[in-house]
Amino acid sequence: MSELSNALLEEIIEEVRPLTRQGKVADYIPALAGISPDQLGMAVYAADGSHYQAGDADTRFSIQSISKVLSLTVALTLYDEPEIWQRVGKEPSGQAFNSLVQLELEQGKPRNPFINAGALVMCDLLESRLTAPRLRMLEIVRRLAQQNDINYDRVVARSEYEHSARNAAIAWLMKSFGNFHNDVSKVMETYFHYCSLAMSCNELARTFFYLANQGRSLGEDVTVISPRHARQVNALMMTSGMYDGAGEFAWRVGMPAKSGVGGGIVAVIPGVMSIAVWSPALDSSGNSLAGTVMLEKLTERLGRSIF
Amino acid sequence: MSELSNALLEEIIEEVRPLTRQGKVADYIPALAGISPDQLGMAVYAADGSHYQAGDADTRFSIQSISKVLSLTVALTLYDEPEIWQRVGKEPSGQAFNSLVQLELEQGKPRNPFINAGALVMCDLLESRLTAPRLRMLEIVRRLAQQNDINYDRVVARSEYEHSARNAAIAWLMKSFGNFHNDVSKVMETYFHYCSLAMSCNELARTFFYLANQGRSLGEDVTVISPRHARQVNALMMTSGMYDGAGEFAWRVGMPAKSGVGGGIVAVIPGVMSIAVWSPALDSSGNSLAGTVMLEKLTERLGRSIF
Amino acid sequence: MSELSNALLEEIIEEVRPLTRQGKVADYIPALAGISPDQLGMAVYAADGSHYQAGDADTRFSIQSISKVLSLTVALTLYDEPEIWQRVGKEPSGQAFNSLVQLELEQGKPRNPFINAGALVMCDLLESRLTAPRLRMLEIVRRLAQQNDINYDRVVARSEYEHSARNAAIAWLMKSFGNFHNDVSKVMETYFHYCSLAMSCNELARTFFYLANQGRSLGEDVTVISPRHARQVNALMMTSGMYDGAGEFAWRVGMPAKSGVGGGIVAVIPGVMSIAVWSPALDSSGNSLAGTVMLEKLTERLGRSIF
Amino acid sequence: MSELSNALLEEIIEEVRPLTRQGKVADYIPALAGISPDQLGMAVYAADGSHYQAGDADTRFSIQSISKVLSLTVALTLYDEPEIWQRVGKEPSGQAFNSLVQLELEQGKPRNPFINAGALVMCDLLESRLTAPRLRMLEIVRRLAQQNDINYDRVVARSEYEHSARNAAIAWLMKSFGNFHNDVSKVMETYFHYCSLAMSCNELARTFFYLANQGRSLGEDVTVISPRHARQVNALMMTSGMYDGAGEFAWRVGMPAKSGVGGGIVAVIPGVMSIAVWSPALDSSGNSLAGTVMLEKLTERLGRSIF
Repeated sequence: MSELSNALLEEIIEEVRPLTRQGKVADYIPALAGISPDQLGMAVYAADGSHYQAGDADTRFSIQSISKVLSLTVALTLYDEPEIWQRVGKEPSGQAFNSLVQLELEQGKPRNPFINAGALVMCDLLESRLTAPRLRMLEIVRRLAQQNDINYDRVVARSEYEHSARNAAIAWLMKSFGNFHNDVSKVMETYFHYCSLAMSCNELARTFFYLANQGRSLGEDVTVISPRHARQVNALMMTSGMYDGAGEFAWRVGMPAKSGVGGGIVAVIPGVMSIAVWSPALDSSGNSLAGTVMLEKLTERLGRSIF
Repeated sequence: MSELSNALLEEIIEEVRPLTRQGKVADYIPALAGISPDQLGMAVYAADGSHYQAGDADTRFSIQSISKVLSLTVALTLYDEPEIWQRVGKEPSGQAFNSLVQLELEQGKPRNPFINAGALVMCDLLESRLTAPRLRMLEIVRRLAQQNDINYDRVVARSEYEHSARNAAIAWLMKSFGNFHNDVSKVMETYFHYCSLAMSCNELARTFFYLANQGRSLGEDVTVISPRHARQVNALMMTSGMYDGAGEFAWRVGMPAKSGVGGGIVAVIPGVMSIAVWSPALDSSGNSLAGTVMLEKLTERLGRSIF
Repeated sequence: MSELSNALLEEIIEEVRPLTRQGKVADYIPALAGISPDQLGMAVYAADGSHYQAGDADTRFSIQSISKVLSLTVALTLYDEPEIWQRVGKEPSGQAFNSLVQLELEQGKPRNPFINAGALVMCDLLESRLTAPRLRMLEIVRRLAQQNDINYDRVVARSEYEHSARNAAIAWLMKSFGNFHNDVSKVMETYFHYCSLAMSCNELARTFFYLANQGRSLGEDVTVISPRHARQVNALMMTSGMYDGAGEFAWRVGMPAKSGVGGGIVAVIPGVMSIAVWSPALDSSGNSLAGTVMLEKLTERLGRSIF
Repeated sequence: MSELSNALLEEIIEEVRPLTRQGKVADYIPALAGISPDQLGMAVYAADGSHYQAGDADTRFSIQSISKVLSLTVALTLYDEPEIWQRVGKEPSGQAFNSLVQLELEQGKPRNPFINAGALVMCDLLESRLTAPRLRMLEIVRRLAQQNDINYDRVVARSEYEHSARNAAIAWLMKSFGNFHNDVSKVMETYFHYCSLAMSCNELARTFFYLANQGRSLGEDVTVISPRHARQVNALMMTSGMYDGAGEFAWRVGMPAKSGVGGGIVAVIPGVMSIAVWSPALDSSGNSLAGTVMLEKLTERLGRSIF
């Protein structure tokens, strides 16, 4: 078994480099379609605060659906649990991330907070309680990542909004069932801004350290959420964090994780480390192809997974 | 935090006793409908081989779908992985355990080996390679549990077979897609025999110790499956082991587990312990209601989950 | 067998009067929920231009989905057929009139022009070709009905718009598949105005006379659509005009017909007569309960159906 | 407009001959796959008993799903209507003829008697009341067609039975919902025998004359079913007789009709004539491609449809 080190991460990066040309960069909006698939990054924060990185770990990219974990995290700090779980479930969907079929059959209650419908409900919850939900999210990620210049990529946010027909359909369908309370356009704007957050692997690994550390952040040691909530968010990432590829990912990698179509994946081994990987080309489930293999190799080399 | 002890298990049993009347005993076959819901059992084997138990831990009951883990385990010893995974997936279904909707839309390939369709495919695989699949399974569980009188409950097996229309529909649908190779009746007979295995909590906890022990059994220290396969089966139980309640179970309990409608649940914390609980009354997802709470309390008291 | 006469229509009205309390008045918008279920009307125009009526045949009500036949009719005058049928099908849906399930599975192409999705596409087509689609529709119905004060009920139109979340979801879903070209809000406004047309049985029977008369209107004898198109619209009403109750209606009544949730139904026997009935209380499929029986009785008394 | 004549039928046959190579002969069983697509037949019985024919009108072929009309007809003579309609619906399915999705969602009640599930229920009904359902059907068609040598094609029946996995799944699914009472294999044997009936266009047009003649047969003038039932069966053929192409067929042809994958279609204009056409190559909905065009041309030439 290997030990964590920059060399180990670099080794892994080199091994997966040939895979970067196998998947397909997200192309549903022009702002993402232009990203070069040649980029590869990896960063780790171990439980003791030590930090490791390799490749393009400082290059910022669009975190996309990784932001869904942040929306849920913020909702957990603003609401009592029953207020959240009466509006969204905790089960894997067994369907594509943007399908309306299940949402209609289940009366407008999304399966979990990590599919689009569920994340839109989280944003709707935030809209009801926060006066400036976009500003608030920036404050949170800047503090967690300890980087004051993290920001939204407004070109991406605008581009997403202009291609948002499917998400609008989802939001309106939930509204028809009474499960959407605020203005659809306004909440979608917030949702797309969150998706457009531009962060690097280093920033992401640091930001999500709280999930590996019983809810407490690195550095200032702030309690983000309770230890129980941290365990629970990890559980939810395990069963529903990787779109309709969660089972395969658990089987191969065995870590709670959340991916985004920008090619990023954050993963944690509770009590051990938080990890962020990035490679823009995606597999057929919409998860970073080389990113998944980086995590698989890391788990094999360290002999560590949660199973 | 508490330490593992018989006293701790007994404490938990007493705490959940009031819940035994809240769920509903499975009643789709007469042989199960007659079970008294007052029974409660719990057994643990720790990594060091130490053993704990409480309540009706020696009473045998119908293990039902818990046997699906055994079918997969045996299949993993008989086939190369691709031969298995081309015929069954690894994803949560997001549907009832016996639904045909998804099976038709996905061309007869079951979502995972722990729903009925997937387990029937596992039995079909065993039928193709074993001359006496029922006898072989008995040998395996007798050796793992170190109990030579474990047997099928033929009344239950017969009763299941007589109420097997839905499973026959599932098997024939898969046959229509070319994903079922042997005689439907014959494979269903095997499937129902496996479901009818009568085992106690003590026997189950000992049998499934290999999943907490990198694939190696307790006692004779036999390699049941490789460490990698053990990790992978655990991952699959995590995402798909608890019917359409896997997400909620992961959120509350945070352990890989598999339940049966007989009221049993087996769970593991890899490297730490294997657990079996039993309480016949089921929740709305078909999982033991008090059994789930027993596991939840155990995880809280020990401060241990996989997250 | 009876002959057509005012007396026959009055007889039928009296026979069905006890049924007016059995169904349920549409209550999804306040403006419809307040309608008294005691009202009953019936009007017939025979092929020779003779006219019969009974009950509240001069009371105007909200024609609702009956307007979907008018939208299709206008579309047929503005577009070549392939331009229409590449965007909407001709098959019965086998689903509720406002379901999104089938629409998603069939890539945003509605099953037929008489479900909401299909009618929205018709309105989208009209929007693309007409500078004032609402004014144009008024001109058409005023001329066909020979009544210059027919108008939209703006209270109903407004109320529908305020409860339009489901239709917005449908329109946005079609937009996500590229099958909706104009502004969603604007087209929905037109759609709800058409639904809100307030017309009486006498006016409706006269308006839809063209479907019984090879496409030519009564009175001024204007060609509304070609004989072939008239036959085809009748065929479409036969298979898809009565929501998910078209088969039952064909079985019992045997006439091409279109119903609205305002309680109206228009029906024709080609070459013989056009009929309009009205009774606000609806059956479980959303069709006028007493209205269906009125048509059934008329067909029995006259010994006339299309079968 | 033309008059009915052998010459007219021959003209139509020649016009559609180029189309016989466009569709695709059914190939799910070898016994059908071998049929030459070059064959074309057409036969008409007018209301006055006069008879017209062209092409291969005497060649027998497998009537397949056309037999579903006969099963329903026989059921209507054996049962009170409510006994039938509590077990099968009257609505178009909006789905493929052999789908299980809708059947599961609708609790094992088939949408109508002309999809496989519904026809299997009809055969199950016949099995419960007839001692020799196969013999009885032969007697009926021999009398109606006035041909004593009409028989089952046992090679086809056997071949169907050997490829019956999908139908077995359907039957077992209905059994799981309590909507199938007899032995699945036995009823399927009857079902496949009915499908395998070998009849010519001339025999079919004569057999189904009762649907154009208020329920009375040609020749011996036997009452097959009541005038009301005849109207109703026609209505059902109109909405559900042409698989998932019923709407398109109504739009183009405008006659109640039932097709079979053997390439035959029977159609009627009530009070006017019964028609049978045959051309083995099928369109994408499973209906005879050239057969549909033959009927379309006949309706155009005669200026007759039911609309």
